[in-house]
Amino acid sequence: MKLPLILVTNDDGITAKGITTLVRLMKTFAEVVVVAPDSPQSAMGHAITIAKPLRLDKTNLYGDDVLAYQSSGTPADCVKLSKDHVLRGRKPDMVVSGINHGSNTSISVLYSGTMSAAIESALEGIPAIGFSLCDWGADADFSHCEEYIIKIVKEMLKVGMQKGLALNVNFPPKMNEPLRGVKICRQAIAKWEEKFDERVDPHGRSYFWMTGNFVNNDKGEDTDEWAIANNFVSIVPCQYDLTAHFEIAILNSSANF
Amino acid sequence: MKLPLILVTNDDGITAKGITTLVRLMKTFAEVVVVAPDSPQSAMGHAITIAKPLRLDKTNLYGDDVLAYQSSGTPADCVKLSKDHVLRGRKPDMVVSGINHGSNTSISVLYSGTMSAAIESALEGIPAIGFSLCDWGADADFSHCEEYIIKIVKEMLKVGMQKGLALNVNFPPKMNEPLRGVKICRQAIAKWEEKFDERVDPHGRSYFWMTGNFVNNDKGEDTDEWAIANNFVSIVPCQYDLTAHFEIAILNSSANF
Repeated sequence: MKLPLILVTNDDGITAKGITTLVRLMKTFAEVVVVAPDSPQSAMGHAITIAKPLRLDKTNLYGDDVLAYQSSGTPADCVKLSKDHVLRGRKPDMVVSGINHGSNTSISVLYSGTMSAAIESALEGIPAIGFSLCDWGADADFSHCEEYIIKIVKEMLKVGMQKGLALNVNFPPKMNEPLRGVKICRQAIAKWEEKFDERVDPHGRSYFWMTGNFVNNDKGEDTDEWAIANNFVSIVPCQYDLTAHFEIAILNSSANF
Repeated sequence: MKLPLILVTNDDGITAKGITTLVRLMKTFAEVVVVAPDSPQSAMGHAITIAKPLRLDKTNLYGDDVLAYQSSGTPADCVKLSKDHVLRGRKPDMVVSGINHGSNTSISVLYSGTMSAAIESALEGIPAIGFSLCDWGADADFSHCEEYIIKIVKEMLKVGMQKGLALNVNFPPKMNEPLRGVKICRQAIAKWEEKFDERVDPHGRSYFWMTGNFVNNDKGEDTDEWAIANNFVSIVPCQYDLTAHFEIAILNSSANF
């Protein structure tokens, strides 16, 4: 039987524990190719690199049976680079991104490098899934996610995904009790309220560290935030058309341009 | 009469011709505050800066009557920084971003720093408009856009914008004939097909420049691409919920997690 071809990427960098876990899981049933950033690229959103050149270097990090490259680019760059210069025209059956060290629920999907790689793949018509664990630790415990990740990837390879979609999968941090299952959710309408921590450098100039609190006033029980808070795995199907279609008719009737 | 308070930002950097034009236009009827990147930030998508500190320095670039700051951050960072450390709690009546040197139609909205600033504002509940000209030249001619920009900003200040929305306004490059008017559009479903130009550096290592062709197979006459190709100003109302809501029921009925 021909194994499915799975491209693995992430935004925490090719040596992160999350991608190491994901590669190991995919290798149990797929041919795995890795193209991932050579350094952490968290919160890069859907950035791409056009004003400077990109590096792409082969690495033996994942053993002789995994074709692996590290790149100086963003997660979206990695997906773009993989097409021409790694896969040389072979189309992956799926792109999986992560496992991110940290939550990508709610509005974080916009800032997420993990999900930008998945959405970039969706644009190319390749089914894609971003996996994130709501635990920012470099040594986060991914063990409770493993069986779900394999199940979700295998199931989506089987039932297929509508063209142009990517799944945003988030896992609650490891608790004493097992995960309660999977919920198909919508993105909670919540936001970050930033605070900037102003400091003064040794030369007397001020600089700012971004910090913030996540504020969720969305009380829906169909959201990713609700699922995570209740120890479910959250799956949000995502698309890339930002058009507020309902507003087109409103503007056509109310605004006079 | 109290003037509206308008925050101006962009992604080409605070000295670009596009933002200089936008500041001049806004000053004719508004109190203007500028917080913009200190260097070009094109294609930064919705990147934010969390792993390094940010600079924010006052500048007199736009004269004594315009409070202006340049920042080392991304366009989204600039919007976030403006809240606490520039406006100190005053909420702008509108955020305008641009005028971008280059198109932000169709899928480019995802990669666009210009639109990430507008969408970041929308998240904060501040009406926002990103302006882009389909001309990448540093010395692009914005003259045909000016009356439309003033008209669109004034009209949206008057009729209001639904919370959480931002407008993506694109202008065709200057032609011999005048613009034909404004079309309210949807985002064309099109994409970039990248080619990477591989070169070898003086040390024998290869590097890659991203290039690409824009491929539009969306034949709709209600798209931003159609409007631009037909010399209309395109306005796409944008929102930030990426959920593919129709897919929730499909996954709930077809996939077995």
